[in-house]
Amino acid sequence: MAKTSDGMNFAPKGKPNPVVGKGEFVFAAIALDHGHIYGMCNGLIEAGGTLKSVYDPDPKKLDVFIEKFPGTIRARSEEEILSDKEITLVAGAAVTSERCALGLRVMSAGKDYFTDKAPLTTLEQLDAAKAKARETGKKYMVYYSERLHVESAVFAGQLIAEGAIGRVIQVLGTGPHRLGAAGRPDWFFIKEKYGGILCDIGSHQIEQFLFYAGVKDARVAYSQIANFNHPEYPELDDFGDATLVGDNGATQYFRVDWFTPDGLQMWGDGRSFILGTEGFIEQRKYMNIGQKGSGGGHVYLANQYEETYYNVNGKVGYPFFGQLILDCLNRTENAMTQEHAFKAAELCVKAQIQAVKIK
Amino acid sequence: MAKTSDGMNFAPKGKPNPVVGKGEFVFAAIALDHGHIYGMCNGLIEAGGTLKSVYDPDPKKLDVFIEKFPGTIRARSEEEILSDKEITLVAGAAVTSERCALGLRVMSAGKDYFTDKAPLTTLEQLDAAKAKARETGKKYMVYYSERLHVESAVFAGQLIAEGAIGRVIQVLGTGPHRLGAAGRPDWFFIKEKYGGILCDIGSHQIEQFLFYAGVKDARVAYSQIANFNHPEYPELDDFGDATLVGDNGATQYFRVDWFTPDGLQMWGDGRSFILGTEGFIEQRKYMNIGQKGSGGGHVYLANQYEETYYNVNGKVGYPFFGQLILDCLNRTENAMTQEHAFKAAELCVKAQIQAVKIK
Repeated sequence: MAKTSDGMNFAPKGKPNPVVGKGEFVFAAIALDHGHIYGMCNGLIEAGGTLKSVYDPDPKKLDVFIEKFPGTIRARSEEEILSDKEITLVAGAAVTSERCALGLRVMSAGKDYFTDKAPLTTLEQLDAAKAKARETGKKYMVYYSERLHVESAVFAGQLIAEGAIGRVIQVLGTGPHRLGAAGRPDWFFIKEKYGGILCDIGSHQIEQFLFYAGVKDARVAYSQIANFNHPEYPELDDFGDATLVGDNGATQYFRVDWFTPDGLQMWGDGRSFILGTEGFIEQRKYMNIGQKGSGGGHVYLANQYEETYYNVNGKVGYPFFGQLILDCLNRTENAMTQEHAFKAAELCVKAQIQAVKIK
Repeated sequence: MAKTSDGMNFAPKGKPNPVVGKGEFVFAAIALDHGHIYGMCNGLIEAGGTLKSVYDPDPKKLDVFIEKFPGTIRARSEEEILSDKEITLVAGAAVTSERCALGLRVMSAGKDYFTDKAPLTTLEQLDAAKAKARETGKKYMVYYSERLHVESAVFAGQLIAEGAIGRVIQVLGTGPHRLGAAGRPDWFFIKEKYGGILCDIGSHQIEQFLFYAGVKDARVAYSQIANFNHPEYPELDDFGDATLVGDNGATQYFRVDWFTPDGLQMWGDGRSFILGTEGFIEQRKYMNIGQKGSGGGHVYLANQYEETYYNVNGKVGYPFFGQLILDCLNRTENAMTQEHAFKAAELCVKAQIQAVKIK
């Protein structure tokens, strides 16, 4: 498989826009099981964060990481980082089922936690994370990258906040991904570890629904999973979809799958269609199909007054990271509330638990 | 409301491609309650059909129709058409809840019936239609225009038949429509008459699922309806969506709504995303958002070998109509089987009956 899969190299670069000076916000990385760790660290560094140290039990993963971020201290143990008083936040991209346990250790050590999505895989882990957040007052923040680290997604949020499409009534998202099975670690195909497709890549979708539609709570009205064409990986869900209904009546449908074909220019033609009472927004997040080398950042707006195309590539940036740093320093919740992060986690686990297996 | 709604003027013109000579296939029109009758008659005429006569109790509707199709005989009653031995088929676009009753009279008179979609609104009507088809051997065919009279939809079917995307695993469709309430008749807002949104415009979607995915039977896994923003029309569903699972494991999601905003260049940005094991197809049926005057017929194919854009506007035509004429003459089922037409009707009624009202 010549084509790259997603997470292996997903690390968007934005315009550096530091909110703090050097050394004012020091963080570390623990657990490099998913390539999202690079995007997470990039984002924090561009916002002014100082990456001090890194730990992973696998020396090869550390080699690659330190080559990417030269000058980072190669910690000899997780404990070395957890006991470092200078470090405010630990970023981690552990195996999905181990993300919560790492977070509990990080928060017990008096630090904020910033984990790759999905942030956890069971409702028991969720309860433990909530209890630890209450007990310590520390943050359990989540890298929902398909909104936080995608310029079209940031811009769509700004359009909605300005009232461009009225009240949001439905968020429809598709999150196709290229499997690139040869480049995936073993845990990726073990359901207990990756959590199932609706928990894993579905978490991006549910978080976007809560955000765009202003939903505080929701129910999973229907969800389903399938393994349509990968009998060699019997625990892989290669397809999943779900319908949710929010507490304000807004609804969501999303589909996630591992069927991006090799002929496509990008690892996935991720789309988002946000329907409002006064118009709609389409995002073509990573590419514009049929236009080679089209790049990402395509936003289409139609409302009562206009039909407009925006190319926001390189123009919007990723305000989440600076907001997160300031939230950690000031104990505010402007980047994302803890309640929101946990609600998305809860719903993606519930969508997975309730899912009907159709194939 | 300056913008036109859909059905009022939906009558695609294709390349005339007659399959019979003048007078070899004579048909008539009864019931002009929906503008689709113009597309239905156009399609048959372009395929060589001879439109002989027309009847509707409303003289104004007859005036408009005869102006559009000069030379058509203005029948004085429905009976005049039903007793005309020269007429092989009757096309009708009655109020949705009355389409079945008209069909029963047409078939009892020994003629084939070609009705606008949705072809009926209740399971009792479906039983009566099936019984009449068995009893008379006549056809109860349906103008599922969003596939039959849309070139991208015809072409997508050809690509699938050629194996371009492998086995179809999901059909995802959106069918937004502009309401244009001022131009709609009263019956359009009375649920008993229009049948509900999933039955009405949802019927297009379900028919496409059965066709593209090669599904003979399916279950409605979940469906929902809402009136999000039209309290002045309490019986209008302005939103509906549904998930179906086919007997071969393929699945469908569709959304239909009446929220096309005035700023959009077209009455609806109808899309179809067909996901296969080896690739996918996107259709932008009526427009390409962001490109003014873009017209319809946009098809995007991605598979293991390529990522390709096709503009099929004016290139594919509408083979259904010629096939239907030959089916009537030869008693074959190449245009559409009776079983398929009835199955789509059954499932759209079931989707409506089962629907959860979320707002």
